[in-house]
Amino acid sequence: MVKGDELFADFSSFPAQAKLRELAASPLDLRPAGVVTPERIGAYRARGGGFDLLFFGQRLDEEVLNALQELADQSRAVAQFTAMRQGAVLNRIEGFASENRQVLHCSCRDVFSSRPREPQSAGQVRAELEKLRLFLTDLEQGRLITPQGEPYTGMIQVGIGGSDLGPRALYLALKAYARPGRRVDFISNVDPDDAAAVLGRLDLSRTLVNVVSKSGTTLETLANEELVRQAYRRAGLRPEDYFVAVTGQGSPMDNPRNYLRSFYMFDYIGGRYSATSMVGLVMLGFALGYDGVMAILRGAHGMDEVAQEGDLRRNPALLLALLGIWNRNFLGYESLAVLPYSQALVRFAAHLQQLDMESNGKSVSRRGRELAWQSGPIVWGEPGTNGQHAFYQLLHQGTGLAPAEFIGFRQSQYQQDLVIQDTSAQEKLLANLLAQSLALAVGQADDNPNRRFPGNRPSSILLADRLTPESMGALLALYEAKVVLQGFIWNINSFDQEGVQLGKRLANRLLAHYAAGRRGQPPPADPLGRALLEAAAVL
Amino acid sequence: MVKGDELFADFSSFPAQAKLRELAASPLDLRPAGVVTPERIGAYRARGGGFDLLFFGQRLDEEVLNALQELADQSRAVAQFTAMRQGAVLNRIEGFASENRQVLHCSCRDVFSSRPREPQSAGQVRAELEKLRLFLTDLEQGRLITPQGEPYTGMIQVGIGGSDLGPRALYLALKAYARPGRRVDFISNVDPDDAAAVLGRLDLSRTLVNVVSKSGTTLETLANEELVRQAYRRAGLRPEDYFVAVTGQGSPMDNPRNYLRSFYMFDYIGGRYSATSMVGLVMLGFALGYDGVMAILRGAHGMDEVAQEGDLRRNPALLLALLGIWNRNFLGYESLAVLPYSQALVRFAAHLQQLDMESNGKSVSRRGRELAWQSGPIVWGEPGTNGQHAFYQLLHQGTGLAPAEFIGFRQSQYQQDLVIQDTSAQEKLLANLLAQSLALAVGQADDNPNRRFPGNRPSSILLADRLTPESMGALLALYEAKVVLQGFIWNINSFDQEGVQLGKRLANRLLAHYAAGRRGQPPPADPLGRALLEAAAVL
Repeated sequence: MVKGDELFADFSSFPAQAKLRELAASPLDLRPAGVVTPERIGAYRARGGGFDLLFFGQRLDEEVLNALQELADQSRAVAQFTAMRQGAVLNRIEGFASENRQVLHCSCRDVFSSRPREPQSAGQVRAELEKLRLFLTDLEQGRLITPQGEPYTGMIQVGIGGSDLGPRALYLALKAYARPGRRVDFISNVDPDDAAAVLGRLDLSRTLVNVVSKSGTTLETLANEELVRQAYRRAGLRPEDYFVAVTGQGSPMDNPRNYLRSFYMFDYIGGRYSATSMVGLVMLGFALGYDGVMAILRGAHGMDEVAQEGDLRRNPALLLALLGIWNRNFLGYESLAVLPYSQALVRFAAHLQQLDMESNGKSVSRRGRELAWQSGPIVWGEPGTNGQHAFYQLLHQGTGLAPAEFIGFRQSQYQQDLVIQDTSAQEKLLANLLAQSLALAVGQADDNPNRRFPGNRPSSILLADRLTPESMGALLALYEAKVVLQGFIWNINSFDQEGVQLGKRLANRLLAHYAAGRRGQPPPADPLGRALLEAAAVL
Repeated sequence: MVKGDELFADFSSFPAQAKLRELAASPLDLRPAGVVTPERIGAYRARGGGFDLLFFGQRLDEEVLNALQELADQSRAVAQFTAMRQGAVLNRIEGFASENRQVLHCSCRDVFSSRPREPQSAGQVRAELEKLRLFLTDLEQGRLITPQGEPYTGMIQVGIGGSDLGPRALYLALKAYARPGRRVDFISNVDPDDAAAVLGRLDLSRTLVNVVSKSGTTLETLANEELVRQAYRRAGLRPEDYFVAVTGQGSPMDNPRNYLRSFYMFDYIGGRYSATSMVGLVMLGFALGYDGVMAILRGAHGMDEVAQEGDLRRNPALLLALLGIWNRNFLGYESLAVLPYSQALVRFAAHLQQLDMESNGKSVSRRGRELAWQSGPIVWGEPGTNGQHAFYQLLHQGTGLAPAEFIGFRQSQYQQDLVIQDTSAQEKLLANLLAQSLALAVGQADDNPNRRFPGNRPSSILLADRLTPESMGALLALYEAKVVLQGFIWNINSFDQEGVQLGKRLANRLLAHYAAGRRGQPPPADPLGRALLEAAAVL
């Protein structure tokens, strides 16, 4: 087993820090004529895994870039990434109780060679993929049909957090490629209205239900599963003819009597990194077919390979990670706007919010010490051009600002377009994307102070040819790698989520008041909890 | 005409500033036992317009609250709100070219008395409402039917920015109350895939199209309208049997030959404040019926009345505005998380993003001077409990943090629920909401540094009985009033959006390269634009 903890070094210990701090005192001014030139635009560009990363709009020059490369080298971020793929126990805090696990989401897609980086996990992944292939073949060849003898046409994914956000973002991104007559819906929130709204619009008699919970004990998922089971029974249907499970081996949900099929997820894959495990693939396989699933994996695997490249210019994930660190730790920006110019990526920012903020929203180093530096930013965003008609006002002219990552594709998915005023909609989309990055960078002077644009607002642009299963896999892996690489450099554990526990515990304390009432027991001795419920008038 | 500009005073000029700055040097520590007590929870509560605002979780005491009340009084925020409703020309910058308009979105709902605050606009609003009533009655009584003699069952809203976000957020919030057999879809993005995805799943022969653009020249909307018209023609349908328009009187879209019906919007209502104008109401009326529309207006009007209350404790909008200013200007937080515990509010944060960031993302005062203080925060958020399984990690344990506004309802919409482990899903939802606010405030000590919660992270809770058309109207108006009141106090123009112009201009510059190619003209002399298109490999 690769250990990896000889790689745990504090962010403050890297020699490149001092130089970067010095350079950050007078970052490049992007506004004067002769700074953002055609030459700069052409030169500040990296490429890998099917994506181009244009970063002329960042407040840096070659000197900063070289120092960022030194920081990457000194932190041994890529070596840690390699160790991670090989099975190092990187989900841990030295000297304290922690999850103490390997981090092997990359194994989900390390299925294209006979020598995977970590053979044991890759073997388990292959076994699950084979189960999935059989399941999908049975559906397609009519061996697995409804009790009424018809094909299943729908699937409801029941899950929350990583079992919802990543899979949902991928489905919405790729539903242009869904097989005819197949649709997927999602139930995630404990809000009873969420389930009611979905169940109310579906023909349950032709709809599979995919329940996803690693532990088999996630409160929201269990509650929603039970709600859905009751809806099936009310409709005169037997849930066991419709329900499939994705869960940990041996979990309470690992029970063939309750499910048509079961697929396994493993402890070495965290929820927010699980979209390319069975957590996402069972549903995506239903929608896109097995070939679609394999294309996603191929794209992701390709980007994992690129993420092991040490040169910033040949590794978009590493460059994106370092640009983020430049903006966060040296220029002091607190948030990051992710702005896809593709309506299909409508939920990708929500996935990134979890991926990034749950991974890197940490205050303790992997050595168990309070951080003396900033970690992950607040991540938010919406698709453009919609956003241009909404919050971009603040991006351009607010007293606060957020560095931006634009994402775009050269061609549309549906290839249905229309030329108006001599340009197509896709051209309008791309022109707007590029124009925003330029506008943020260079700004504009004006005699009317209200029409002045301060400029110097950093942004990058990620571009690929077309949003397909393969490029979506690559984009997903690119951001996974970015987040993980940043965590390595900040010396934090990007793989646990202790910060969700306190709220859960306090919620249970409040629920005890309701439960006691329903059981006819005396209320708990908890004056603070009681006061809260009473002040809210919900008891 | 009420002038209102005698009310333009700089934020830095208010005497309460000094006291607030002094108090902010040692804000209340929420963590020690004996600070967040049952008494505090009960006492730090305001009420109005059907909403309770619990703010025990803010870092303030009575002294701060009194100073915030002084700031509210000294800024004459409520007097400006009243002047706004009476027709003062508040959309302006003194001494510089500006839109120079009244701000009369509140007139949209000032239709419940014989003495509206601003009679001329209220008269125009009533006339449009009457046209809407007739339109809806014609649909219901079968006078307005498809050429095939069937009722219309769907509507596509084509709009962008304020013609999309607010209306869409309201529709999703209220679709539990939609009339049977009526659904609404939305096309907003210039992304051609957005339109293709929507058009691909609808029966156009029974679907109305509502095109919304005040100027009748919004690029995205015109392009999408044309895409949709072509789809109708391809399906053998005449667009003029299906299309209705919401636009400014005299705009290029104000043409009865192209539309079944036309409804007007007015210059004195900005896009992001237009959800309760015909921009939202034509579509909402189709979905909910005229009674539903009137209920929304009643709720909004009620909150507008409450927003004229001078006492913080009796005016949730004003209190929310001042709590925001305390956190932004005195405690220094850059962003605001809005976290509705209701899946139906899934797009409400996106609407608020526009409402708040486009209104208050400004750097120039109403006197045309550079601000010497911070203005609007970055606003973002997703529904809980989903968010708890996603980004809450950072809210609790990140090195950065964001003040939070939780929104909840005591009862569910569908009233379909299930008791599991002696509590209902709605109780779980509420318990989680309340627990999060408490957890953020008090934190938790632990021997394991990774399980420590620093606490002292500010939040408020907004609660109403149930998400209905009326309470949704009130919630919408509450946030509109909050944003406007903050703008008054910061002395900025919350009603223009000059910051969107530069990007538009640069996009047109890039589009000229495509258009020249298509017209067979020589390319424009624009080396920077050309370099950008070439670096992106999109030319």
